[in-house]
Order: sequence, then C-alpha cells, then structure tokens
Amino acid sequence: MKSDKISEAVVRRLPVYLRYLNELHLREVATVSSQELGQKLDLNPAQIRKDLAYFGDFGRKGIGYDVSYLIEKIRHILKLDQQINVVLVGAGNLGHALSNYNAFLKDNMKIVAIFDAYTPKVGTKINNLVVQSMEELTATIKEFGIRIGIITVPDVEAQDVADKLISSGIEAILNFAPTILKAPPHIRIHTADFTTDLQSLAYYLDNGKEDADHDEA
Amino acid sequence: MKSDKISEAVVRRLPVYLRYLNELHLREVATVSSQELGQKLDLNPAQIRKDLAYFGDFGRKGIGYDVSYLIEKIRHILKLDQQINVVLVGAGNLGHALSNYNAFLKDNMKIVAIFDAYTPKVGTKINNLVVQSMEELTATIKEFGIRIGIITVPDVEAQDVADKLISSGIEAILNFAPTILKAPPHIRIHTADFTTDLQSLAYYLDNGKEDADHDEA
Repeated sequence: MKSDKISEAVVRRLPVYLRYLNELHLREVATVSSQELGQKLDLNPAQIRKDLAYFGDFGRKGIGYDVSYLIEKIRHILKLDQQINVVLVGAGNLGHALSNYNAFLKDNMKIVAIFDAYTPKVGTKINNLVVQSMEELTATIKEFGIRIGIITVPDVEAQDVADKLISSGIEAILNFAPTILKAPPHIRIHTADFTTDLQSLAYYLDNGKEDADHDEA
Repeated sequence: MKSDKISEAVVRRLPVYLRYLNELHLREVATVSSQELGQKLDLNPAQIRKDLAYFGDFGRKGIGYDVSYLIEKIRHILKLDQQINVVLVGAGNLGHALSNYNAFLKDNMKIVAIFDAYTPKVGTKINNLVVQSMEELTATIKEFGIRIGIITVPDVEAQDVADKLISSGIEAILNFAPTILKAPPHIRIHTADFTTDLQSLAYYLDNGKEDADHDEA
C-alpha cells in the first residue's frame, strides 16, 4: 500500500463506499459491480475501480466485488478494525451535537473524553461522559491512548487547543473551528467547516444547470 | 468564467482563500503573494495561482495580489455579494448548533427559517427564529426566495426532506445526515458528514510520518 501516492480525495471516498457496502451487506447482497456502485454514489465506475485498485485487486471481471470481502478490506485500510479513541474539546452546542451523534459510535471509533476550558461546564455530563477540565487533558490522552482530537471551541481558542492536543500525543485532528490551524507536518488536520461548505455551494447556484456533478472532488 | 471546467476542489478552496484575505484586510495588509498565501494555507503557491487564474488575471508579477480587489472578486465569484437565504430542516442538537454558529451570519448568507417534523418542537424559538411545521415549508421557501437548504434530520428522514426542499424550489443542499441523497442533476448537494471525515482521518494515523500533506484534495 503506497500511501504517499494516494490522494486525499481517494481516501475521503472510501468511507462513502463503505457506508453503501454496509447497506448492501444488511440487505444480504453478495456482490456489486462498479456500475451499480457508481450509479448509487453518483461517481464514474472507472473512478471507483481506480480508487479501489490502489489498495489491491478486489474486483472480478463480470462478477464485480464481493461485498463482505470489500467491507473487510476497506475497514482494514481505514483502520476501522482497530479501536480508535477520540477526544472532543469544546462542550458547546456543536460539541453536544457531535457527541450525541450516534454515527460516531459505529466502527470502533469512539469519543471517550470531553474537555472544556469553561469552569461551569466541567463536571456536567454529556452522554455518560463527564466534561473534564483542560488541566486533565494530557493525562487522559495518555491514559486512554487517544489518537484523534475533535476541536469544537471558538476560533480564537482553536490553535491553543490544537497545540495542547499535539503536545499530548494526538496524531490527527478534526477541526470544526472556522480557522486554519498550524501543525507539524506529521499531524494530519481535516477542517470540517460548514461555512466553507455553504460558501462553495453558493458558487453553484446559477451554474447548476450546466455543471451537474455532485461531490466529485 | 467557464464553470464546467472548474473542479469542485477549486471551488472549495476559494472560501479558504477568502477567509485569510479578510484577515489580511483587517490587518490593513494591501498586497499578498501566492507564496505568502501558500505558506499560511499549507498549499502550493503554483496551485493557488492556478486556482485564481481560472477566474481572471488577478495577480501582478513581483507585487502579488491586491487584497481588497481579490476579496471583492472572490466574493463575487462565490456570489457572496448577493443576499442568499438559507432554510434549515431539523431542529435537533445539530440544527441548534448550526443555527447558533455565528459564522453563518457573515457574508450575506443567512438562515431565515427553521423547520421540524416533530410537533412539540414547532413554535419553540431558536435564535429569534420560530421553528415551523413542515406544512409551511413550501410557502416559506417561496415567500423568502430561499435558495439553499441545510438538512440536519436523522438519515431515514433525509431523502424525504430533500425531495420536499427540491420540489419547493431549493437549488442546493448541504446535507448533514449520514446518507447519500438522490437529486436531479441540476440540484447541487454537498454532504457534510463528519463520520467520513473521522474515518478518512484514521487512514492517516500510521501513514502520517510519510504523508504529510494537509487538506490537499
């Protein structure tokens, strides 16, 4: 698996494939073609074949992909066959929403601790997790072997939180604060900013009729 | 402006450029080079020049980009110089978080109505907006000329809500439900699914040392 050659766009499509494959598996569908996947996911079948070929030779001509086998492989590629502990910093509205979101609890990825810098929030409970003070952050990350951090603090506090997460040993960050975080090159940061999502949507408002691709990037 | 040639990846980077340009403008910085932009945004300067060149000849050799002029141009490209009304469907935790998020209120894009199918929520207030029942959806969209819809309902309800938004005249949807929505080709759908964000982050956990690009897709 040559990770350095695989673009982020490909990696970001894998969970999308996985979700639909899980759906097929629940419906007891044994095989699926790249054509069917493409139709359902609004993607070019050749693109799907190319994406999956980065990781191995999973499809069989005329038969397609074995659903269970491909699920197992993608889960392995995405490391969803490991338990990955996640910490959330920022127990505001968005932090509440994320920790409530049941999708998080799937696939061995789990928020195991919540932190907030605001004293009155410390000690309150969100989904069976007690909000902890920032002083306990490093010790908790080490104790639970937490590898991913989610930042849902206001933008002015985000860099400080990122620095604390990184110095405590976090390897990857999902940042919801509308700001660009600086981090050493070995730390992976994804920004989940719905402001930019909304703004890029607006671009398509009058171009929609000519440019009809969905989520192709 | 040949919208059919511009990839979604480019369009999605424009709001990121804009945010930093606004920051420079506040600091009264008059010009910026693609090198400075690239360093701040963790992007290749050549990529930035190429992105901006799709839309016009904004930069001047040896001087760089005029910050105010580029802000004005990007705002125009992203249609942020228009008032764009947004509707939110789903007044749960996530809907609350999004409607509270002050970033939404910038740049003339505004949530002007909130809907929920759950009767006890109808009539409650979120940030000065009264949650309305789904029966009023079409009339409200037409009355306010709403063009973008945000879906924050559970995944099983998302397609039904999307269909209602589209038949009411919505042109673009930001979908937070962890499901793939079907829509006619002239409707633009972006999926803001932090489950896939998290899952694609996990991919990089052990590859981080070799593969250090941030958000390059």
